[in-house]
Amino acid sequence: MPHLPGQPLALTMGEPGGVGPEITVKAHRVLKGSGPVFFVVADPSVFSGAPIAIIKNPQDAIGVFNDRLPVIDVGKPASAVSGAANVASAGAVTASIEQSVAFALAGEAAGVVTNPIQKSNLRAAGFKFPGHTEFLEALTASAPMPSGRRRGAVMMIAGPELKTVPLTIHVSVRDAAAAITTAMIVEKALIVIEALSQDFGFDPPRLAVSGLNPHAGENGAIGAEDRDIIAPAVAQLKRDFGATVTGPHAADSMFHPDARTAYDAALCMLHDQALIPAKTLAFHEAVNVTLGLPVIRTSPDHGTALDIAGKGLANAGSLIAAINLAAAMADRRASRRAQ
Amino acid sequence: MPHLPGQPLALTMGEPGGVGPEITVKAHRVLKGSGPVFFVVADPSVFSGAPIAIIKNPQDAIGVFNDRLPVIDVGKPASAVSGAANVASAGAVTASIEQSVAFALAGEAAGVVTNPIQKSNLRAAGFKFPGHTEFLEALTASAPMPSGRRRGAVMMIAGPELKTVPLTIHVSVRDAAAAITTAMIVEKALIVIEALSQDFGFDPPRLAVSGLNPHAGENGAIGAEDRDIIAPAVAQLKRDFGATVTGPHAADSMFHPDARTAYDAALCMLHDQALIPAKTLAFHEAVNVTLGLPVIRTSPDHGTALDIAGKGLANAGSLIAAINLAAAMADRRASRRAQ
Repeated sequence: MPHLPGQPLALTMGEPGGVGPEITVKAHRVLKGSGPVFFVVADPSVFSGAPIAIIKNPQDAIGVFNDRLPVIDVGKPASAVSGAANVASAGAVTASIEQSVAFALAGEAAGVVTNPIQKSNLRAAGFKFPGHTEFLEALTASAPMPSGRRRGAVMMIAGPELKTVPLTIHVSVRDAAAAITTAMIVEKALIVIEALSQDFGFDPPRLAVSGLNPHAGENGAIGAEDRDIIAPAVAQLKRDFGATVTGPHAADSMFHPDARTAYDAALCMLHDQALIPAKTLAFHEAVNVTLGLPVIRTSPDHGTALDIAGKGLANAGSLIAAINLAAAMADRRASRRAQ
Repeated sequence: MPHLPGQPLALTMGEPGGVGPEITVKAHRVLKGSGPVFFVVADPSVFSGAPIAIIKNPQDAIGVFNDRLPVIDVGKPASAVSGAANVASAGAVTASIEQSVAFALAGEAAGVVTNPIQKSNLRAAGFKFPGHTEFLEALTASAPMPSGRRRGAVMMIAGPELKTVPLTIHVSVRDAAAAITTAMIVEKALIVIEALSQDFGFDPPRLAVSGLNPHAGENGAIGAEDRDIIAPAVAQLKRDFGATVTGPHAADSMFHPDARTAYDAALCMLHDQALIPAKTLAFHEAVNVTLGLPVIRTSPDHGTALDIAGKGLANAGSLIAAINLAAAMADRRASRRAQ
């Protein structure tokens, strides 16, 4: 029997014109023997030809997963032309996310794994959120966090050899450098540390914090932020929270194999400081995890890849890794509750 | 007989209290059978106990290299206490660089490989330059460039799998973002392209240019620099110089193995965009190369490492790679002259 992480995992449909349907079918083919058990919330027509089973409830996935991809009908039509993102699918795409999150909040799904979406199309159809993360924050805003944990969506890129968290994400380098504050670093670091402990099982969790500037600023010689903003945050995390934190480190010397043995995750100031090492080391195995939500949420670390959709070329490695990681996080939460 | 790259290579002494003497002796032990032949310009006392041979002229290195480390006496005393950088050594440190460059300019050395220096100590002794690179620019300012090549020191980090060039180096992220211009990108790119062709043998040389902002700015949605400054530089390089250049690329997706097959070197906007992938992939094998000088110059990609100096722990891999790369560049220049 395939592994069941408490409950089956909910996969969203994602943009049906992208690689989502193809990698979902591939992931099921790889995982159907061993699990983790999952189902996808989608318009069943986007899986034409694939061995699916329409189910009514998440629990029904358990019985069919060994043979067929369990699909819960999202109840809205989607266009299934590979390689073409269609605004007409937007209602089904957003409904899939809403229903998947609802299953997780109700305890019927162990977590949510999201397939890539085409944001421009969703926006054209009236979607009001910059991306998945903000939408998930809104959908879970009234649900309680696990006991004692801070709320606040934090993106982590998790690969087999390295976990990194960008403090700033989709803002320009100039705006990012101007936005960094000591309080922001402390708050995000604490959310990461709680997740490292409770979802990833590190005891004590060890966090490395990067500098912003080259060589972490050489004590103010190359920009003042490392000395005046980042170092005080590291000091505060140690002093006020007893955290196992080091830094600010020169970002270019943090990610080679020897350096990586000294920490469990790295909090970096800029998007590229975090994403370059993560994707250089594990382009097809890196998983995007959202920490600080009431529900477990992972996703593959790539986009809709419209250019290769439907051609059989898409690599399901990142989606499979996302499913496995969500299951491992769910198992760890379940074993903590059982204690 | 060990390989001779036209002439022996000149190694500088570097800070004698750092790992320089130790890795120089280790590099000689590894390379004495096969070469490339080199000599070091130093106070011989810093190699106490090691098998050295005092020589008078670079050519004398050829006869002794198989047995002993050839040393040309720099003629100024240096303090040889491992782990302690001493201001009293500054005169010998700078004289070693001056004499090594003079040998290269005179055609008696095939190139210069610099051991790490302690900049703060040199400055305390009156050294007026921010680092090696600017000093080498000054020492070679009146010497002609190889025929048809642009002058202007450009730092490249070269590893076995990846070559990167940071457009901006030791400036803060804020200043770097504000400093980038189309003309600066074009000029540095041309120096890199000339070196890729003439010193590294790529035909045609293929250059990838990174964006500045996350996802290369998403066409202006995340900062305007990628669209308004970097993209025009790429277009100009193609249109006016017939260069094989692509970009601006999202820096986080440029450095995984598949992506690296598409270019010979990457020009990145920020220090960390270039140095993170280079050092993540090849921390002990990466070489710092200065392009755009009249003489060949390489160096190990690490500092004086005072904390481990003299303990036998220092890894000579980067210095050995720097020696081998300088020799390969010299061989290629020699074969071009012979054509």
